[in-house]
Amino acid sequence: MEKLKKYISLKDEDQFYPQGAVELLVFNFLLILTILTIWLFKNHQFRFLHETGGAMLYGLVMGLIIRYVTKAPDVESGTVYECENLNSGPATLLINITNQVYEYQYKREISHHNVNGHQGNAMLQKMTFDPSIFFNILLPPIIFHAGYSLKKRHFFRNLGSILTYAFLGTAVSCIVIGLIMYGFVKAMVHIGQLKQWEFHFTDCLFFGSLMSATDPVTVLAIFHNLHVDTDLYTLLFGESVLNDAVAIVLTHSISIYSPKENPNAFDAAAFFQSVGNFLGIFAGSFAMGSSYAVVTALISFMHLTKFTKLCEFPMLETGLFFLLSWSAFLSAEAAGLTGIVAVLFCGVTQAHYTYNNLSPDSKMRTKQLFEFMNFLAENFIFCYMGLALFTFQNHIFNPLFIFGAFVAVFVARACNIYPLSFLLNLGRKQKIPGNFQHMMMFSGLRGAIAFALAIRDTESQAKQMMFTTALLIVFFTVWVLGGGTTPMLTWLQIRVGIDPDEDLKAEAASQSASNLDKNTTKAESAWLFRIWYGFDHKYLKPILTHAGPPLTTTLPEWCNPVARLLTSPSAYGDQLKDSDTDYIINNDELTENHESSAHIPVPAQDSTGSTQATGKEDIHEGDLGLGGYKLQLQHTAGQAQMNSLA
Amino acid sequence: MEKLKKYISLKDEDQFYPQGAVELLVFNFLLILTILTIWLFKNHQFRFLHETGGAMLYGLVMGLIIRYVTKAPDVESGTVYECENLNSGPATLLINITNQVYEYQYKREISHHNVNGHQGNAMLQKMTFDPSIFFNILLPPIIFHAGYSLKKRHFFRNLGSILTYAFLGTAVSCIVIGLIMYGFVKAMVHIGQLKQWEFHFTDCLFFGSLMSATDPVTVLAIFHNLHVDTDLYTLLFGESVLNDAVAIVLTHSISIYSPKENPNAFDAAAFFQSVGNFLGIFAGSFAMGSSYAVVTALISFMHLTKFTKLCEFPMLETGLFFLLSWSAFLSAEAAGLTGIVAVLFCGVTQAHYTYNNLSPDSKMRTKQLFEFMNFLAENFIFCYMGLALFTFQNHIFNPLFIFGAFVAVFVARACNIYPLSFLLNLGRKQKIPGNFQHMMMFSGLRGAIAFALAIRDTESQAKQMMFTTALLIVFFTVWVLGGGTTPMLTWLQIRVGIDPDEDLKAEAASQSASNLDKNTTKAESAWLFRIWYGFDHKYLKPILTHAGPPLTTTLPEWCNPVARLLTSPSAYGDQLKDSDTDYIINNDELTENHESSAHIPVPAQDSTGSTQATGKEDIHEGDLGLGGYKLQLQHTAGQAQMNSLA
Repeated sequence: MEKLKKYISLKDEDQFYPQGAVELLVFNFLLILTILTIWLFKNHQFRFLHETGGAMLYGLVMGLIIRYVTKAPDVESGTVYECENLNSGPATLLINITNQVYEYQYKREISHHNVNGHQGNAMLQKMTFDPSIFFNILLPPIIFHAGYSLKKRHFFRNLGSILTYAFLGTAVSCIVIGLIMYGFVKAMVHIGQLKQWEFHFTDCLFFGSLMSATDPVTVLAIFHNLHVDTDLYTLLFGESVLNDAVAIVLTHSISIYSPKENPNAFDAAAFFQSVGNFLGIFAGSFAMGSSYAVVTALISFMHLTKFTKLCEFPMLETGLFFLLSWSAFLSAEAAGLTGIVAVLFCGVTQAHYTYNNLSPDSKMRTKQLFEFMNFLAENFIFCYMGLALFTFQNHIFNPLFIFGAFVAVFVARACNIYPLSFLLNLGRKQKIPGNFQHMMMFSGLRGAIAFALAIRDTESQAKQMMFTTALLIVFFTVWVLGGGTTPMLTWLQIRVGIDPDEDLKAEAASQSASNLDKNTTKAESAWLFRIWYGFDHKYLKPILTHAGPPLTTTLPEWCNPVARLLTSPSAYGDQLKDSDTDYIINNDELTENHESSAHIPVPAQDSTGSTQATGKEDIHEGDLGLGGYKLQLQHTAGQAQMNSLA
Repeated sequence: MEKLKKYISLKDEDQFYPQGAVELLVFNFLLILTILTIWLFKNHQFRFLHETGGAMLYGLVMGLIIRYVTKAPDVESGTVYECENLNSGPATLLINITNQVYEYQYKREISHHNVNGHQGNAMLQKMTFDPSIFFNILLPPIIFHAGYSLKKRHFFRNLGSILTYAFLGTAVSCIVIGLIMYGFVKAMVHIGQLKQWEFHFTDCLFFGSLMSATDPVTVLAIFHNLHVDTDLYTLLFGESVLNDAVAIVLTHSISIYSPKENPNAFDAAAFFQSVGNFLGIFAGSFAMGSSYAVVTALISFMHLTKFTKLCEFPMLETGLFFLLSWSAFLSAEAAGLTGIVAVLFCGVTQAHYTYNNLSPDSKMRTKQLFEFMNFLAENFIFCYMGLALFTFQNHIFNPLFIFGAFVAVFVARACNIYPLSFLLNLGRKQKIPGNFQHMMMFSGLRGAIAFALAIRDTESQAKQMMFTTALLIVFFTVWVLGGGTTPMLTWLQIRVGIDPDEDLKAEAASQSASNLDKNTTKAESAWLFRIWYGFDHKYLKPILTHAGPPLTTTLPEWCNPVARLLTSPSAYGDQLKDSDTDYIINNDELTENHESSAHIPVPAQDSTGSTQATGKEDIHEGDLGLGGYKLQLQHTAGQAQMNSLA
């Protein structure tokens, strides 16, 4: 019934070759080389090329070798079969060849202009991974690790600024890149370099959104080694973590934005639908991720009578922690949300609640496990990026487009950082100084997320051009900007060698000494956040972890029976261990803290009242010795007294 | 040119559904359930159902649900396309459907009788993993972990017996099962239940070899918890570890054994070729695995001047360790050898050499990492086995064949254990008592390897029948035999609650007290092994690790320049730390050890001379306190003196 027309087909001699072993071996080899290089670098304090840059370089060399040294086209030209009475490609195809039935699985749709690209080297084809591997296997551990290792104290101190850069900044960056690229595309069409139909405005916006995901992994690694100013570190780290999530959801929303009539015209309905999509997906993913983390916290917290706690079995605990965090990702994906965003907030929440309940052994295990997975995944992606420059077979190098993209990316970064910093400085007590702004501008590196978003769809020529351009921008920023970080720090005269804890104390001490207005310092922590913090500390922490005050003291009296049921028996004694909840840094507490160090137990008598008082122990994050601990005991006793009086 | 004939094709509605998220979520859910169950079991000291049995049970229930509750056949009947001018299935197929080209990837060949089986439930189809996932992803960590955690002291004490059971025993078991099954098949053909052509003798042997892989994970877990007699534990553990490797290579050799004329006739040439294949593959895999481990040991041992040791960076060290071990697997696979065997011996060698060089942090990290991966992979496989009973779509339940297989498996286990134990007891000083033999007979559980080998090829009806039967045998043995372990131990009056170290010491003490013949005790450690041990201790350990005596003392004098170059500067001082090389347990050393505990430093004055003397510190495996360590210091000092005098 169906007719088959001979066109092009592919034939592969070694289909019974051990699947993927050679390809994986190549990557293993690259990673081993990278590790050895890192070792070498660490010995020579070499800071001009970061490990990720090295991994990319090795990938590049390997890509060159595979492309030009391995035997050339071993793929025969063949046939495209025509099949007229099917409407779309079925998932599985059974084909009868010389009386033997073969099963074929749907892989993807191919544009007509790409059909010839398939005649390439079989080795190159095998080295090209399915893009979904990046999103489903390699990115989740990286993102989870970022969330899990977030330094909360400094993060929340700069929360407002970070959120502004991440949400508003990414949107600004996306739109600016989109507009500039649209200008370039129009110009290219005008001079005849490009056909009109190839690039819609939404394509440009799509490119803008994927190029807005910054990944300053190199910069942050150097910052970490040099102990650069903590506020700058936190601003950059916080921005890059959240902005990945924003860029991913933004890209997704733009790709499903479809104006009905003219794809170039602005369709208000479709636009608002896109914004709605963005908000819905973001909020849904956030909720999904957090709720899995809450479930994990609850399980690890369970204290049934005659039942050993889960933390007695570190292996089971780690397993459960791992599986539930992964489930957060998978559930979000299955529900049509964004797994990466879910896993990010899952990581943050796990670090906040579950981490407190884990046994010391599990705390270390989970940290090391995710650190290890992050390390492997990150270096793998950078190796692969290097490789992709030569092994990916549908590159379209368009010099004008590439030039435009470079211009757009840097202008967009400037439009993101400088105006927003100016606005933020209006509200911030502790301004973001000019050299910090320049450093943030300079740290606009693009990395794994931009690459993963670009490689996800490389079917149309527009998308292929974008992929090639994105890859080049990643190379340039990682090597040039990444390599220039140390000279730039010197040039901008940014302080290095700072102990984050010392930093905070010194600041607070100087402020309390000069007795500056307390209220403006307090205002640094967003008011909304203060409310949330009080709620979290008084209710959520006691319910979900062994930390925080007993619920019986925080809930109204008529709730006592419920409170007693929900409170861990150890909470009454264990509340002193709440060393992880280092949130609001404000003047009073730090002053108090300083007094504490002088061993003068002063119960909290502050105008902000009980929220303030219960937040007291949060300041002690390992930087106080036994003296501080002893004092805290007295402190808490005083506080409990206050609570019972109230 | 080609004609297409409509036959059957498949259509899947949701091909853009997030790939695999739902399926992975199901497995995550099962694993979470399993972990919670293990937790419950641990609380109630429940020993009748092991965690793997539980995982299988959950898998079974989930399989039932998926099969009968999820929406039924959502796969339309369609077309098998006929394609006459191709000789074999190409790897990639481009198909033009309504002017859009789709790419299809080769999946597998399908027998004609299975074509209808493809009309099933799409969910069932998705839950069926590619069998290569078992071999390439799930088994390697399990096998590596087994090798890495091998308790060497007890293992080498029983090396001869273990090798006999593993090599000879597996061969006996394979042949016995093959013969019995061939008898059953003949009988079935006779009564008309089976067609002659479906089962060759090689098929029966194939079934025999895959059913010969025992996996007493349940039994060993219970043994471990109850501290059952260490010799029995070691015999079973050692046998099961090696016998997996033997069974895998055996299965591979049999599957490529192809007598030229009559498939049922015995072809001596093909047989010897198969034996040659077996030996070649086994030896090659062994060499591949060990050499990767040696490379790892060398890298982790490197001590260049002005160069920080790798062990200063635990993360890099762990990464390198992981990647090189995985590379051993991949290289073996790429070279056409058996990756599983390579990874097993890689694990053993890593534990022997590299482990000594690792930083304390890395020692723990690697152990925990592999423990964790083993835990997840093992439970995943057992979940999947449960699931496969209902989700696999080409089961062939043949009662007579299943009955025959059960008989064959138990008879073969008996033919393996009892005659070999009898033969071994002729040579062993310390006999394997009858109750140990019964317990070993009883512990012939089948598990992950048998399943993975069976699911690897399920194309022909014979193979499908084998798969179904293997699955049922796994279920039966894990649930019934696994569950019956504790009662069986009681019934056979096997000692429990034994501290392995105490055990050894007590034995040695009683022997030295009664002053029984030393020589026969020594003979327990195979003589070949003693030679190897001396070589290893004197040359390999000093070259590859920080342990062992300095090469300058063990090599002949004229080699001194080379020896100095190769010896770690720390070796002279560090040799005391050689706590891992607990190999030969013989009477003299243990006696000496006892004297040592009494703090009487006696330099070695033994007839066996220097090998004996240098082997002295090996006995201290954590079971001696500071006193022992102090003494060792004096000991070694004395020994160094002796060496310098010599």
